[in-house]
Amino acid sequence: MGGTQPSGRLIGVGTGPGDPELLTLKAVRALGEADVLAYFAKRGNPGNARRIVAAHIRDCMVELPLHYPVTTEIDKREHGYVTAIEAFYEESAQAVAVHLEAGRTVAVLSEGDPLFYGSYMHLHVRLSRRFPTEVIAGVTAMSGCWSEVGLPLVQGDEALSVLPGTMDEAELLRRIGGCEAAVIMKVGRNLPKIRRVLGAAGKLERAVYVERGTTADASFTRLADKADDAAPYFSLVLVPGWEGRP
Amino acid sequence: MGGTQPSGRLIGVGTGPGDPELLTLKAVRALGEADVLAYFAKRGNPGNARRIVAAHIRDCMVELPLHYPVTTEIDKREHGYVTAIEAFYEESAQAVAVHLEAGRTVAVLSEGDPLFYGSYMHLHVRLSRRFPTEVIAGVTAMSGCWSEVGLPLVQGDEALSVLPGTMDEAELLRRIGGCEAAVIMKVGRNLPKIRRVLGAAGKLERAVYVERGTTADASFTRLADKADDAAPYFSLVLVPGWEGRP
Repeated sequence: MGGTQPSGRLIGVGTGPGDPELLTLKAVRALGEADVLAYFAKRGNPGNARRIVAAHIRDCMVELPLHYPVTTEIDKREHGYVTAIEAFYEESAQAVAVHLEAGRTVAVLSEGDPLFYGSYMHLHVRLSRRFPTEVIAGVTAMSGCWSEVGLPLVQGDEALSVLPGTMDEAELLRRIGGCEAAVIMKVGRNLPKIRRVLGAAGKLERAVYVERGTTADASFTRLADKADDAAPYFSLVLVPGWEGRP
Repeated sequence: MGGTQPSGRLIGVGTGPGDPELLTLKAVRALGEADVLAYFAKRGNPGNARRIVAAHIRDCMVELPLHYPVTTEIDKREHGYVTAIEAFYEESAQAVAVHLEAGRTVAVLSEGDPLFYGSYMHLHVRLSRRFPTEVIAGVTAMSGCWSEVGLPLVQGDEALSVLPGTMDEAELLRRIGGCEAAVIMKVGRNLPKIRRVLGAAGKLERAVYVERGTTADASFTRLADKADDAAPYFSLVLVPGWEGRP
């Protein structure tokens, strides 16, 4: 009664790539301590992150789904998209802040690792200076994929490049040519371009295509053996280094 | 009695970067099932990986430390070093194979993620075709570090380069110049060179130096604020992307 309530704690929780067993002990503990469970999701689909932690959700938790606005009709490069998505992140941060100001601990789920391409980053930059914040690292999707395949990726003094498949063809070729190992993300409709680039770089024979890594529907194949160019957005192409392995 | 015994199972277990709470549930389960616990170590020091899993070691487990040969007097680029280390990996694989042939499940510890610069890779390539093998992905050291710092690393269509600090100066500059975000590993005595390269690339102001990330002794500072050039081998420099964050 009266006095100033201490503020709550923000926790960015990495859920790992998909297999619920790839949650860390620390993530499980955070889920046991949190009052509020927040996650980005599409309307009508609670999404992968929530599915991964489902066994650890307690009845007493408040769920705070942060629903992406419907932006499919707007081109991503257009000003209208950027404005809409920025407003959405501001509103989401405000919705989380209300709970933090009330002294509640808020766990924000993030597939993979929170600060590695995670949507959580948009809340982190808006809230971590105002509230006590902890980030719990997670297993990345790429680690999940090369482990599933059993593909040694990079060793010793080699470099690894993580590249988005959305990149311009010439730029992608320049970058893939200059590294020992590579992971190409956001494959989807970019697969034909990725094939051409790997062919030109002399790396097509080594490349492995992975779909839905670490889920029950996971599959993989040498990219050179994949007959079609159909690929979901969240598939990956792995180009292992370590050619001169001892 | 009699008949052929089914062979055991090889499990590469990622232990995460140092904090025992960053073990995955899957790693903990594997440690509960394994008959033999193998790990690479220096003689007289069981090493970080074993320390991370210490709470999960059972009395009935056989411990199989794989002791690196003393090679400090041999230059790494010399033929003698390569021969000695290859023989060591062959012997280590043989020592593990003896248990697998006897039907035992062998968990091989690997700090961070097993197939991402891990010594486990040397056993994997020698044994995974002969024995049923599973690789359990782990949280990498770099994820542990940027989470500890609370530093958003890379977002959207950006690329990340993971680079060894041992790389030639001109080559390091070429690669750092052409990427949005970078992680430089194996810092140690390479720190003055890394400073010069980041200065030349206009990225020194953004760089963060991290020492012993996710351990009780963890510390970090803006690299520009670090007064000396003393750095342990396993320190990291993080160069975040996401400059135009919304």
